Amino acid sequence: MALVASVSDNKQIQPSIQSLVELVTGGMEEVNQIILAKAGSNVELIPEIAKHLISSGGKRLRPMLTLACADMFGYQGTGHVVLAASVEFMHTATLLHDDVVDESDMRRGKLAARKLWGNQASVLVGDYLLGQAFKMMVDVGSLEALRILSEASAIIAEGEVLQLGAAKNILTSEEDYLRVIDAKTAALFAAAAEVGPVIADQSAEMKAAARAYGRELGLAFQLVDDALDYGGSSADLGKQIGDDFREGKITLPIVLAVERGSDDDRAFWKRCLEEGKIEDGDLDAAIERLRKVDAIADTVQRARDYGANALKALEKLPAGPHNDALAEAVAFCISRVS
Amino acid sequence: MALVASVSDNKQIQPSIQSLVELVTGGMEEVNQIILAKAGSNVELIPEIAKHLISSGGKRLRPMLTLACADMFGYQGTGHVVLAASVEFMHTATLLHDDVVDESDMRRGKLAARKLWGNQASVLVGDYLLGQAFKMMVDVGSLEALRILSEASAIIAEGEVLQLGAAKNILTSEEDYLRVIDAKTAALFAAAAEVGPVIADQSAEMKAAARAYGRELGLAFQLVDDALDYGGSSADLGKQIGDDFREGKITLPIVLAVERGSDDDRAFWKRCLEEGKIEDGDLDAAIERLRKVDAIADTVQRARDYGANALKALEKLPAGPHNDALAEAVAFCISRVS
Repeated sequence: MALVASVSDNKQIQPSIQSLVELVTGGMEEVNQIILAKAGSNVELIPEIAKHLISSGGKRLRPMLTLACADMFGYQGTGHVVLAASVEFMHTATLLHDDVVDESDMRRGKLAARKLWGNQASVLVGDYLLGQAFKMMVDVGSLEALRILSEASAIIAEGEVLQLGAAKNILTSEEDYLRVIDAKTAALFAAAAEVGPVIADQSAEMKAAARAYGRELGLAFQLVDDALDYGGSSADLGKQIGDDFREGKITLPIVLAVERGSDDDRAFWKRCLEEGKIEDGDLDAAIERLRKVDAIADTVQRARDYGANALKALEKLPAGPHNDALAEAVAFCISRVS
Repeated sequence: MALVASVSDNKQIQPSIQSLVELVTGGMEEVNQIILAKAGSNVELIPEIAKHLISSGGKRLRPMLTLACADMFGYQGTGHVVLAASVEFMHTATLLHDDVVDESDMRRGKLAARKLWGNQASVLVGDYLLGQAFKMMVDVGSLEALRILSEASAIIAEGEVLQLGAAKNILTSEEDYLRVIDAKTAALFAAAAEVGPVIADQSAEMKAAARAYGRELGLAFQLVDDALDYGGSSADLGKQIGDDFREGKITLPIVLAVERGSDDDRAFWKRCLEEGKIEDGDLDAAIERLRKVDAIADTVQRARDYGANALKALEKLPAGPHNDALAEAVAFCISRVS
């Protein structure tokens, strides 16, 4: 009995997205059905690749944000479900193109689509999913939601181009890096949350609060991801530790380590990330150099700060189970790395 | 005097898109301004690549269709100009992604963007332009135009995936090939024309006629392009003869030649196009084999048939200078190869 009680206590202490999942479970079933239907095509390769991605088990955090941010206002229509599905399609299209651009081999612990079907198919199926996403938004008929999501689409691509420029430059500033993740990650989180009150026909204040919540959560989420790449467990993230390192990605831990490091540190980062000359033991050495200057801990601290901002934004939104679940999602996001 | 008269006669006999260009010249200036403004970004690489494409001198046939098909109804607003610019952005995004997928080295007689800036930038800047295109459509505020253009966007990508599957298969049927070009080329011509009467608030009959005109013109245009690759002058097309051949593209001339050829012919096409084993003199041999079975002439004849359908669709649209200019554009398109 004592053991059971203790396990149950632990479950309550450890933040989880379970309450969010449970609150939107009905809506997410509809989202999944729409996704499978709209990823269909007479052109075989399209559903094949789409199903590979869909079944590869992302958390579907973005569409859940859309549903929760509409449901919290008692929205009774079906538009939020279609918008949530198009948000997930936009995200999936981005992943397909990202893997091509980053020359990634793995995605969520599985072979990336580009390794299975080639870069060409990944580019084109991404385009198809993006086209389908816009068609679905048009079906919903809200020009405001269309404006928000098409704006996000352009901003995400702009962020990716910006990252491309920064990719091989260890002197990327913290400010520049934050611009990148604000665009490539936080913009879709922000849009996904904002279209909730939009479709529920709420005030500008509610839309701004939902948008702010999504954006701050997205920033926190990305920084946790960055930190995990140098210290989390691969089971958590569905990717191996050191992926960013091997791909020469400049992330916040690196930016901080370069700023704070010695000439010897900078030479190390330059060789590994700019020149791509990585030898056995370099990943361990990288983690050691990051720890020495608190680069991982401070990245996590930044994530906490953004998480706190997300909670502040939530205070402006209606209290209730959805609000509580969205707050727990912030804690869950941070807890992945703590 | 006789000489001058004769030259002037020739000019009238030779069809041209000059009258279309002149009719929409004011609108196209606005389109160009919008294109330059919307291709702008703080991220340097984006305007750099966009300007390279924009200045590389396509004919801008698609946005001209949008303008002419709105102007012919006396449309007085500015929505057609913005829609025309978004049509051109959609087209430019497709070109960027196409070059990556086809591994092309040249585009309109210039180095392809991917050769200058890399595949990664081409994928991402394409995504950015597509996002901007949707933002611009949202600004216009016509959900019907948005539906038509987002549908076209998904269909184009679907056609490209289909073509990918057919790319290395010389047994592609004529029907399958027509499905590919209907999607990857004709769909955007059809949408570009249809949004003219849509923004001018015309009847379903007018929209259908404009759509049919655009589609049939698009099919004719693509087949002429296919034929030119095996016999036109490179100056006409801005690409060298034999690009499709070297890239192993299965186009209508090949489909017809395989259907009609001997075992020896099929072995030749298989070696060159499926296996990519091309030797000196093979392009000349290919053209000879195509001519022997009338594959180029019959491709041109198919283009003429689609052109005739386009003219029939025009008969349902209002008579006047725009109608005349659109008819001449059909004749011009065919004349490139005759």
